[in-house]
Amino acid sequence: MEAKLTLVGAGPGNGDLITLRGINALKNADVVLYDELANAALLDFAPAHALKMYVGKKAGNASFSQQEINGLIVRLARKRGHVVRLKGGDSFVFGRGHEEMEYARDYDIKVEVVPGVSSCIAVPASVEIPVTRRGVSESFWVITGTTQNGELSEDLKLAAQSKATVVVLMGMNKLTEICSLYKRFGRGHLPVAIIQNGTRPDQKSVIGQVWEMPRLALEHHIGTPAIIILGEVVALHPEYTTEYLHAMQHVGC
Amino acid sequence: MEAKLTLVGAGPGNGDLITLRGINALKNADVVLYDELANAALLDFAPAHALKMYVGKKAGNASFSQQEINGLIVRLARKRGHVVRLKGGDSFVFGRGHEEMEYARDYDIKVEVVPGVSSCIAVPASVEIPVTRRGVSESFWVITGTTQNGELSEDLKLAAQSKATVVVLMGMNKLTEICSLYKRFGRGHLPVAIIQNGTRPDQKSVIGQVWEMPRLALEHHIGTPAIIILGEVVALHPEYTTEYLHAMQHVGC
Repeated sequence: MEAKLTLVGAGPGNGDLITLRGINALKNADVVLYDELANAALLDFAPAHALKMYVGKKAGNASFSQQEINGLIVRLARKRGHVVRLKGGDSFVFGRGHEEMEYARDYDIKVEVVPGVSSCIAVPASVEIPVTRRGVSESFWVITGTTQNGELSEDLKLAAQSKATVVVLMGMNKLTEICSLYKRFGRGHLPVAIIQNGTRPDQKSVIGQVWEMPRLALEHHIGTPAIIILGEVVALHPEYTTEYLHAMQHVGC
Repeated sequence: MEAKLTLVGAGPGNGDLITLRGINALKNADVVLYDELANAALLDFAPAHALKMYVGKKAGNASFSQQEINGLIVRLARKRGHVVRLKGGDSFVFGRGHEEMEYARDYDIKVEVVPGVSSCIAVPASVEIPVTRRGVSESFWVITGTTQNGELSEDLKLAAQSKATVVVLMGMNKLTEICSLYKRFGRGHLPVAIIQNGTRPDQKSVIGQVWEMPRLALEHHIGTPAIIILGEVVALHPEYTTEYLHAMQHVGC
């Protein structure tokens, strides 16, 4: 028996956005350690004998610490063989997958990384907003809204001045701060979309401009988990509109 | 018969990094229009009756213009039914997928988008460099090295001043310019990796610092297609080293 860890990106919410290589890893699993975000139906790919264990963190209320998960990986790999660590999206995009990889390696456990479809691209795509578009956006910048020290990421200050499409993950509790920052840089009329539960059946979204977004998100009851997309590409959405434009039409602009 | 277009992201070079939903689309294809970057083995998922047509652009030497591809999609969807447009990586990351979607819609053709594993995350991951890492990088910025006007993207000037992990796609012919830009902002010692043919059997990579990278890329015969990753996360790679560090060790620093 070989102790082995495979980090598998499960893709965004929907179960058929996992890769073929990810499925093959699950089929050969002795243990599956999975997170909140991975679709539960994916567990059916694992053999009947495999131990399936939920180790996700519910918003704010950690059931397992990262240190405990690291320890579990090592103990279970040694005891049972092939551990598949199934995470939503991609393990290396704010997934702490690299920390788990390093920890396992330190204990001489073989590690393989299977990339996944990341929410940062697939969730905007699910409402048909492309993160790049020729003539509109030459780049996209993916930033976490939840930093280690709880402050708004310094990167967001530069992002608000850039022409990049900005995708903020885990940023809903900082939405008002983010919109204020953009307004400070004279970008109150930049198009924004927020998508909750992207690619899942209960997906919800709201679209408008920076200045009105905190209020719109409240009115539409948009909560976590959600992705915020700021940039001109958002205006490509067929339903893109803003109260600002409505008001302008009223006064005949 | 329904005229339909499905944009499928095939993932990076390796054939098993396509999603389950992408495979299902191929299985139901009447036509597959594919690019250079998609793995040829993926075509075997399409039925025997399906027309399989290469429409990729060889570096600099376009075999089909974008306008011709748009026209083909519409004509073939009307004539044969379900057209799968198979592109490397993800269709909405510099893939012009959104333009094809809009064009087809204008002709009342139903469109579905199947996201893919993007090279911008998966190729760094294939050499075990995470685009984000707690305590090291809170964001990553993906920028094209090949802009419409042939100039270096303005976004790169801000990127060189940011703490983001910067991933440059299609940027090899601008490598010297990019490194000069970073040096101008005092970041000559920032870690950089370049990966050619990421996730394919002929993958090659080189790792070092900004100041030495144009020379190292030449010495290691790194060509296109390649991805350039600039940022502190690159130093997490176990083989990260630089001639600068060697020199420092020599003089006893």
